[in-house]
Amino acid sequence: KVIWTLLVTILGYASSLPVGDDSLCTAEDLAKYSIIFTGKWSQTAFPKQYPLYRPPAQWSSLLGVTHSSDYSMWKKNEYASNGVRDFAEKGEAWVLMKEIEEAGEKIQSVHGIFSAPAISSGTGQTSTELEVHPRHPLVSFVVRIVPSPDWFVGIDSLNLCEGDHWVEEVSVDLFPYDAGTDSGFTFSSPNFATIPQDTVTEITCSSPSHPANSFYYPKLKILPPIAQVTMVKIKKSQLGLPAPYLNVQAKRNEIIDTVS
Amino acid sequence: KVIWTLLVTILGYASSLPVGDDSLCTAEDLAKYSIIFTGKWSQTAFPKQYPLYRPPAQWSSLLGVTHSSDYSMWKKNEYASNGVRDFAEKGEAWVLMKEIEEAGEKIQSVHGIFSAPAISSGTGQTSTELEVHPRHPLVSFVVRIVPSPDWFVGIDSLNLCEGDHWVEEVSVDLFPYDAGTDSGFTFSSPNFATIPQDTVTEITCSSPSHPANSFYYPKLKILPPIAQVTMVKIKKSQLGLPAPYLNVQAKRNEIIDTVS
Repeated sequence: KVIWTLLVTILGYASSLPVGDDSLCTAEDLAKYSIIFTGKWSQTAFPKQYPLYRPPAQWSSLLGVTHSSDYSMWKKNEYASNGVRDFAEKGEAWVLMKEIEEAGEKIQSVHGIFSAPAISSGTGQTSTELEVHPRHPLVSFVVRIVPSPDWFVGIDSLNLCEGDHWVEEVSVDLFPYDAGTDSGFTFSSPNFATIPQDTVTEITCSSPSHPANSFYYPKLKILPPIAQVTMVKIKKSQLGLPAPYLNVQAKRNEIIDTVS
Repeated sequence: KVIWTLLVTILGYASSLPVGDDSLCTAEDLAKYSIIFTGKWSQTAFPKQYPLYRPPAQWSSLLGVTHSSDYSMWKKNEYASNGVRDFAEKGEAWVLMKEIEEAGEKIQSVHGIFSAPAISSGTGQTSTELEVHPRHPLVSFVVRIVPSPDWFVGIDSLNLCEGDHWVEEVSVDLFPYDAGTDSGFTFSSPNFATIPQDTVTEITCSSPSHPANSFYYPKLKILPPIAQVTMVKIKKSQLGLPAPYLNVQAKRNEIIDTVS
């Protein structure tokens, strides 16, 4: 309960972080974080057209990047890159990985790529580690909603640096986005390319405003979060140990027990 | 062509490495590797019952671990752990990640976990980085064959240390294994638990010896490799740079162009 309060506090705090603005990071050294992704896509919370088989509701691999404000993986109301399109439509990561590497080579705007395994149900968890750098303090990632036409959840340019230090812990609720590249309306719509391509838009309980939309719940004011992500800073003293992730395990279990 | 010859040479060499024996590693410091997984599961090479839809042939996320000989992720002719069963049957990584973390906590036999994104077709590629340690020089990983009952490809305890230094590059052909937990005979067999559980076995063109088996090709002597993995050591001078993986990119492209 204490942890939960802490999370909520930090959550409120996180929303006031200067997202996308990495010009003021004077933190020393790198920082490592444990990142835990929790799917909350249950049939109870999202009863409409909930996918039960071939395939059942699940989450793709998580693909993320730590970067500076010179790079953007995806952004609301802008056009998705070819890499994000492939990932959102098919869970295919290769083109997106290439785009990230190119951004790193050409404009040194990328620190590293990270990924976490897929989740075979709507409500499971996955996790990995990531590293941020004072010149590359922003985190972005995408996870494809499976099945879906081109829907995903993710984070765009969350700044983990706060002036001269790194944020200890941050937790963010996630909501569905449409990559704007496939015109399917429901989880299991057949492929139907959107031409011309549309921008990335948030899917809400009232938009797209059509009863056939899988997330259309006219009686709700807002959708419940379909997923959540928590990042916990790994203490410096824990780095370089044979198993650096182990010491955040207890903490991680606390978080998991609390949020689930 | 030169690279190819090099790969073949190293491949032959790799098979003589003391797999699973990490007692003699006197290398200094850690080493980082770029690991590239290439799916070779094409309809041309594997025409029988090749899965074309719902789902088409593809590969799960890759989940791997660097460890000492006190840990084993999976082993031919031994029983699969619950984590390997969940991963081989459903691509669900959570229990396997927990098992790995426990092995790290209890007997310090694990250095780190790594993962790479799934591949949405039978012949694509994925990649990530891994780190080995003189006390934890072995690499193991699994990738689930999708769709399949409980079939996977992987590496068991490949030693990247060679006396006082780290192997520069190694490439290994991969063949399918049956986790021994589901009795399905074909790619799209319905789930049917194997009770009592069987051991992990290699699937060949003649075993299981039944015409219904998806890999049963009585006219072949051996199956073509269904996948390949290449690990390339990242040079020390490249570590600690903003984007440490970038400098192996050229090398990586060469390998990819050559093997594909």
